[in-house]
Amino acid sequence: MNFSSKLIEEAVLAFASLPGIGKKTALRLVLHLMNQPLEISGQFSEAITKMRRNIKHCKVCHNVSDTDVCSICSNPRRNDELVCVVETIRDVMAIEATGQFKGVYHVLGGVISPIEGVGPEDLNIDSLEKRILDKKIKEVIMAISPTIEGDTTIFYISKKIKHTEVNISTIARGISFGGELEYADELTLGRSIATRQPYMNLDQ
Amino acid sequence: MNFSSKLIEEAVLAFASLPGIGKKTALRLVLHLMNQPLEISGQFSEAITKMRRNIKHCKVCHNVSDTDVCSICSNPRRNDELVCVVETIRDVMAIEATGQFKGVYHVLGGVISPIEGVGPEDLNIDSLEKRILDKKIKEVIMAISPTIEGDTTIFYISKKIKHTEVNISTIARGISFGGELEYADELTLGRSIATRQPYMNLDQ
Repeated sequence: MNFSSKLIEEAVLAFASLPGIGKKTALRLVLHLMNQPLEISGQFSEAITKMRRNIKHCKVCHNVSDTDVCSICSNPRRNDELVCVVETIRDVMAIEATGQFKGVYHVLGGVISPIEGVGPEDLNIDSLEKRILDKKIKEVIMAISPTIEGDTTIFYISKKIKHTEVNISTIARGISFGGELEYADELTLGRSIATRQPYMNLDQ
Repeated sequence: MNFSSKLIEEAVLAFASLPGIGKKTALRLVLHLMNQPLEISGQFSEAITKMRRNIKHCKVCHNVSDTDVCSICSNPRRNDELVCVVETIRDVMAIEATGQFKGVYHVLGGVISPIEGVGPEDLNIDSLEKRILDKKIKEVIMAISPTIEGDTTIFYISKKIKHTEVNISTIARGISFGGELEYADELTLGRSIATRQPYMNLDQ
């Protein structure tokens, strides 16, 4: 593309460096910002800069946070005896969006993956062990993706924290609500029969 | 979405205010920038701010420009006797990308559209007339979209500059190269027969 303007070109390249944004989309965004009042485009840049400069990771759970301890960990109405172990902060957001979990989190920062060169020492596993030993934690829920890497990570962590005698659980796996049996993969369907649960009406 | 971080939330809302970017995409972009070195995210914001603060419109053709007169108008190797009239700077980029036009441009800034409240006085038409009168312009090519608004605009401008006795042409309309006849719309196909051209081998 020929931009005939170095300023436009640099702004387009900046946007195009983001994941999933091609040059045509980048140009559309840049031309949009160009046509906005100076104030609006200033607010846009400032929000990015401020976020990047001031964002912290919670000292307790490693979630993103504006303060040293995140708003979830410092909320006295959350049950800090129940820790949900997740891969990324995106998973925290997904679980928070359900509004059904009242415990706290522990963000690993990924899963063990020899192919991608991620070992246990790259994840926040030591701090989880320390947290279990220091605090009165009763249960650790493993909310990790059901993949080979995820299962390996769960296995590693459960061995590592076995000596603390904390209860370890994993999130339920099975057919999605609203999912149709015939479209479920064989492994999920097979396991959902093997791990069948007593029938109960949750509304009661 | 629950962000548990005001900084993240504001950055996501900034991205989500851009056209075609939803909240999920915005979050993905923000988390990407969050994981970049401070320098990279700084460069990103700076490219936007610099562009918006310093971008100008060429005094001659109204194209975007880093200087008072754009790089196309100030290029002595361009033929400034041949002016291509376009709607937007995006059209300039599209025609420049063909590498086949060696004249200069005039950006109207839109087309006449009573529905959207755009009248002739909102477009750079007076400056086109003045430009034709002041400079030694031989031909004006109307490269305007073949829509009702576009045709109205061409009609208005041609009437307005008729007294200058400049040659007025429009870009050729017909079947696209590589386009299949059976899929062409009836109007285009009908007109392409009516405005048929003598056969010539362009390679010779």
